[in-house]
Amino acid sequence: MTEFDFDRYDRIRPIRWTGDALELLDQRKLPFEVEYVCCESSDAVAEAIAALTVRGAPAIGIAAAWGVVLAAREVEASDGADAARKLEPAIAHLNAARPTAVNLAWALARMRRVLGEAGSDWREVIDREARAIAEEDLAANRRMGAMGAAMIEPGSGVLTHCNTGSLATAGFGTALGVIRAGVAQGRIDNVFAGETRPWLQGARLTVWELQQDGIAPTLIADAAASHLMKSGKVQWVIVGADRICANGDTANKIGTYQLAIAARHHGVKFMVAAPSSTVDMATPSGDQIHIEERDPGELFGLGGVRTAAEQVGAWNPVFDVTPHTLIDAIVTERGVIENPDESAMQAAFG
Amino acid sequence: MTEFDFDRYDRIRPIRWTGDALELLDQRKLPFEVEYVCCESSDAVAEAIAALTVRGAPAIGIAAAWGVVLAAREVEASDGADAARKLEPAIAHLNAARPTAVNLAWALARMRRVLGEAGSDWREVIDREARAIAEEDLAANRRMGAMGAAMIEPGSGVLTHCNTGSLATAGFGTALGVIRAGVAQGRIDNVFAGETRPWLQGARLTVWELQQDGIAPTLIADAAASHLMKSGKVQWVIVGADRICANGDTANKIGTYQLAIAARHHGVKFMVAAPSSTVDMATPSGDQIHIEERDPGELFGLGGVRTAAEQVGAWNPVFDVTPHTLIDAIVTERGVIENPDESAMQAAFG
Repeated sequence: MTEFDFDRYDRIRPIRWTGDALELLDQRKLPFEVEYVCCESSDAVAEAIAALTVRGAPAIGIAAAWGVVLAAREVEASDGADAARKLEPAIAHLNAARPTAVNLAWALARMRRVLGEAGSDWREVIDREARAIAEEDLAANRRMGAMGAAMIEPGSGVLTHCNTGSLATAGFGTALGVIRAGVAQGRIDNVFAGETRPWLQGARLTVWELQQDGIAPTLIADAAASHLMKSGKVQWVIVGADRICANGDTANKIGTYQLAIAARHHGVKFMVAAPSSTVDMATPSGDQIHIEERDPGELFGLGGVRTAAEQVGAWNPVFDVTPHTLIDAIVTERGVIENPDESAMQAAFG
Repeated sequence: MTEFDFDRYDRIRPIRWTGDALELLDQRKLPFEVEYVCCESSDAVAEAIAALTVRGAPAIGIAAAWGVVLAAREVEASDGADAARKLEPAIAHLNAARPTAVNLAWALARMRRVLGEAGSDWREVIDREARAIAEEDLAANRRMGAMGAAMIEPGSGVLTHCNTGSLATAGFGTALGVIRAGVAQGRIDNVFAGETRPWLQGARLTVWELQQDGIAPTLIADAAASHLMKSGKVQWVIVGADRICANGDTANKIGTYQLAIAARHHGVKFMVAAPSSTVDMATPSGDQIHIEERDPGELFGLGGVRTAAEQVGAWNPVFDVTPHTLIDAIVTERGVIENPDESAMQAAFG
């Protein structure tokens, strides 16, 4: 990766710390308006997380960490333990903004821990920790990108789903980071993006993000993925993860499971790229994951225009679970696990 | 099927012959406006077919047959052969309205043939033939419905794709006919409809059509189909066909192939329902079918609202091919072919 030109292939930053405020790229308005929302308080950050102004588990964790730094501006305290007590209401408010996002709780736990151990320099300590969380995420993504791309034969086509890019992280992205690195190294010739109904993260976010970095993806309907695989145009499906269980079963955006079944049917390889903070060794298998179901109304239209017949019922699960048996490789910043199963996961994360 | 209450379960008619004109239910405006377009000339019918006012291969064939009857109003002729010569420009114009719809050419060939054999009563002959084409289609669908439904265990859930109902035929529908019959017989408890991006025939047409007949389907994103199958809520996937080859390989709306792969993976049964006019014994296998690709712009938005990033490329194949090895049953009005292959197809249609 020494020759990788990060500036060329990774221009978007969804989170900017100005020193006084947190600027968040408003992902509800992309790709038609590129607008940063300025948060000057911890409450404003919590509201932005709840409203999906910022989305993507790693990005939410980073935003929340800076939210703690903003909350500290309102507090006088002699040392870290005193500050921790006084900041707890703000931290709890941030933590409640999206209860299912694992990185949110993880980042706030880090902030609490360093605060509890800090002396009179606690303000500098939490400022440094928030910065570290963001920098470590970016570094992890770059490492994953290098390791994931190394598995891809030159001349390959890849298919991705949802948005797992700079927009969802501190930068570079997880699955999109692997794709960025693969394009930069000349391994990937063609990138296909599934539109990802109902929210269209593929059509709205992934396409736009890659375009900013000079990569021209081809958009497909989610239902066209198998026909694409049959054509021989893709060698890898590369996706992110919302939770990776102790046996390698992986929860991710609805539609991921279907791609894994189709990939296996066609001999196309299937890769999951996610930071180690997504690994949940306390959950034995995908059977124990509660699949969130969202408002059926998300299926009734797009962009404020109703397209479905009136008074119809709909079923709108947000995630699905891909069993580890359909996954060829899980890539985290700690390394690559090929053919993941309980023992391989235990060896890496136990 | 003696107890089947057709009036209760099949209320929609996309094509109405008034004796003087052809009324076509405008499928571009459904489900929000229920409006019939009145065609008083053969040219108007050809334009309605080209503009997708009427869609679905059987429905297009029926509309074209009535178009010939309308054209006859403009013609003086002593016998059928004379009339056939004079009507040929109008027939050719109708035939060119949608070059790929096989039932269009098939229906017009029937009209030409009876005309060539008719005497001075040629006007009555073509009127009778147009009526027969429509009535035979409806009867074929009802037969398919009975045979298909007989394969479904009571208490089943089914998933369908695109629109294959009354709206696409003279009435009752092909795959939706099987589902109507199965609901009426108490065999089907739950109907799931994939929204069918990019045109949303499922969300717009299938949902509306079933609602008119008192059946409440559940809409899902196309990408949620595998997660649905894993839940155990569906026992059959039931779809229509645009072309069935000599070995049973079946071309149908994009996404059908993916459903067949997922169905096999989960032990869910896969049924194709289509009239025998959809069978093309001259095409040996799916490899010889040219898959039409339509305007990429269909993937850029919905209902006139742009949702995808600007200047993106897209790949928009309209159909895909499901290999016969993934099909459990092909149902035509002539009977059921289980585990279709070349010899079974030859025995039934050779």
